[in-house]
Amino acid sequence: MKAEIISIGTEILCGQIVNTNASYLSRKLTELGIEVYFQSTVGDHPRRLSFLLNQAWQRSEIIITTGGLGPTGDDITLKTIAKTFQCHLVFNKKIFFQIKNHFTRRGLKMPPINRRQAYLPVGSYILENRVGTAPGFILKKNKKFLIALPGPPSELIPMFEERVVPFIKERLKIREVIFTRTLKFAGLSESEIEERIKDLWKSKPSLAVGVYAHPGEIELKITTQAKNRSRALQKIASLERIISQRLGPYIFGKDKETLEEVVGKLLFKKRKSLAVAESCSGGLLAHRITNVSGSSRYFISGVIAYSNTEKVRLLKIPSELIRKYGAVSREVAEAMAKNIRKLTKTDIGIGITGIAGPKGGSLRKPVGLVYIALSTENKTLVKEFHFLGDRLNVKMNASQEALEMLRQSLLNAKEQPALRRKR
Amino acid sequence: MKAEIISIGTEILCGQIVNTNASYLSRKLTELGIEVYFQSTVGDHPRRLSFLLNQAWQRSEIIITTGGLGPTGDDITLKTIAKTFQCHLVFNKKIFFQIKNHFTRRGLKMPPINRRQAYLPVGSYILENRVGTAPGFILKKNKKFLIALPGPPSELIPMFEERVVPFIKERLKIREVIFTRTLKFAGLSESEIEERIKDLWKSKPSLAVGVYAHPGEIELKITTQAKNRSRALQKIASLERIISQRLGPYIFGKDKETLEEVVGKLLFKKRKSLAVAESCSGGLLAHRITNVSGSSRYFISGVIAYSNTEKVRLLKIPSELIRKYGAVSREVAEAMAKNIRKLTKTDIGIGITGIAGPKGGSLRKPVGLVYIALSTENKTLVKEFHFLGDRLNVKMNASQEALEMLRQSLLNAKEQPALRRKR
Repeated sequence: MKAEIISIGTEILCGQIVNTNASYLSRKLTELGIEVYFQSTVGDHPRRLSFLLNQAWQRSEIIITTGGLGPTGDDITLKTIAKTFQCHLVFNKKIFFQIKNHFTRRGLKMPPINRRQAYLPVGSYILENRVGTAPGFILKKNKKFLIALPGPPSELIPMFEERVVPFIKERLKIREVIFTRTLKFAGLSESEIEERIKDLWKSKPSLAVGVYAHPGEIELKITTQAKNRSRALQKIASLERIISQRLGPYIFGKDKETLEEVVGKLLFKKRKSLAVAESCSGGLLAHRITNVSGSSRYFISGVIAYSNTEKVRLLKIPSELIRKYGAVSREVAEAMAKNIRKLTKTDIGIGITGIAGPKGGSLRKPVGLVYIALSTENKTLVKEFHFLGDRLNVKMNASQEALEMLRQSLLNAKEQPALRRKR
Repeated sequence: MKAEIISIGTEILCGQIVNTNASYLSRKLTELGIEVYFQSTVGDHPRRLSFLLNQAWQRSEIIITTGGLGPTGDDITLKTIAKTFQCHLVFNKKIFFQIKNHFTRRGLKMPPINRRQAYLPVGSYILENRVGTAPGFILKKNKKFLIALPGPPSELIPMFEERVVPFIKERLKIREVIFTRTLKFAGLSESEIEERIKDLWKSKPSLAVGVYAHPGEIELKITTQAKNRSRALQKIASLERIISQRLGPYIFGKDKETLEEVVGKLLFKKRKSLAVAESCSGGLLAHRITNVSGSSRYFISGVIAYSNTEKVRLLKIPSELIRKYGAVSREVAEAMAKNIRKLTKTDIGIGITGIAGPKGGSLRKPVGLVYIALSTENKTLVKEFHFLGDRLNVKMNASQEALEMLRQSLLNAKEQPALRRKR
């Protein structure tokens, strides 16, 4: 079973956007055991798209197109598919009302051109779009499938996961899956991880292992093929166990788990509440914590005290402390963590102060210098970091290390009985 | 002059890495006035690569390959190019010493397999690699060029900028550049923008116009070709002027400007200070504002009051107000904006409360319902929004609309003389 992906859009060919859809779809198809044969990108150009569609139809069983389903003149996918595969477009009342509804729900009137999006290939399996206006569809012909999806990832991803994956699994009676177990590390570098475990996978030829670096975290991916997920997990289990024995404390999560999710689960499990006081990270730590659904159960509040005045007023940092040590100092970070904890009556308080750059650094306190403090009932820990990269990189690394300090602290924390909760 | 890009590597087809090389090269070629015709991706598979090379050679003048130049067995680019274009590979002494040197400089011995990388197509223009071991090369044949580059972006980018760009400019005597002006809109949908200005560009055949949607903002791109940047700007100027006349208030920025940068400039220019009180957006608004270098000049503080207790304690929201109207209400948003402004003694206060989901919604107050309030000395404005999509989408849209309300308010605000500043 071979598939290929055709990405449509002049903005991709001009390099204005990075084609993340192609990599997303390739990964998902690979997981389903479907080999991706080619990826192609073409502009908003009917003749060239038609050429690619014909070529793909000759050599692959599944063709996925992305983009060009919008309502405007440069959206040529629908018309070109209809012409290339000689199928009629028919007006779909149900879809039309959904598109109209998309506007009325937001108190808007549907612009007339959006009506175009309700014309879909006759006999196709329609993929409703619950995020945007462009419906997708699946055309079946001679046991081959053409799957047309909208370009924006926020629309493509839910449509693919909720509608296309079940369709493919059912129609193609998929029996083998490719399964990847991802182990996520914090606190070790890519080469440190590789050094400590590279002896392991030579003895496991049926497993493919790769190590990938991201800001503040490393992913180790173990991939294998099997009848089902649990068989694949069995094949991976022994290698996973040895890696866990060697590097356990550095592994914070598996597969799609984010550090904020893992920390959130620990906070909930150990019944601890959290408040954060941020300066240089500017709200990113709170933003990441609150990206987790259900975070209101443990996250109480955050204070972003960007000015010294507000550090004094909101966080009750003694102004002499700031005068003596400077706003970016071990002492102020410690006071921020202690005070936010006390003020909000939470179990844990975090304080972050530093210099995100690009300006504001000095020889003694360079850009990238960040102090992070974590305060609990028993003690307050302060760490000094020196991060590289631009402003966003420094913010990202600061939030990552704060979450990792929190994780380490929670791993050692006793579970708090429900009755003893403070709030 | 047409170009196409062939990316080589099974890791791209499996979706393990995002193909940023293709977008980088496309952007650079577009800037040089070279149209990118197709992008293709193929695995480490000689027959399929050979097929693509032949096809590209028929229809394009410049072919750029990326990847597959490493020393290991799955690096098939060199051999496949030699076979497809019937050219011999010859041992290059100079390159061999460079590769060897790459190891000795780091105190390592060169592994024997790296010797392979010193065999290059006879008569080709060699592109030395100052970062890694894989040299690139340019093959010229019948006035067409095949440019082979290594896969890692850290090696490809300097090689392209330092060696390939000067080569292309000289050989192809490039005298024209392609220039894109991006206009960024907030507060209008993609189709509303197109409806109001689609009559315009039909009369301008030398300009290409495209409209692209992102969460909470729309980009309109006008592209043209000219001798230099200022000539291109002249060609674009009249269309840009008419669009500005029709849709001015909705245009928040140009080219790479972000909404938070634009708002930051306005805050600084009008000498206004800002504080924000966030609930459902969880710190994202403060995070975006503080992503702008120099934001400490106008951003004073942020409070993320996730729990009702903290709304009362930190923001002094009367608890009866929350009891009567609910935490997600027009009234609480208004009180949040007013109170954060008063508490921090800033010129402007913003309050955001809503339901980010996926849980916590009800029939009367569904997921995606968000109230945003903006309070100044003279008045407080509250708006109700209904956003679609997942938790992060709701947060993203809420922060975007808050920034847009702030921009509109600042556009109308009088400049505050330095002496009257409150802080």
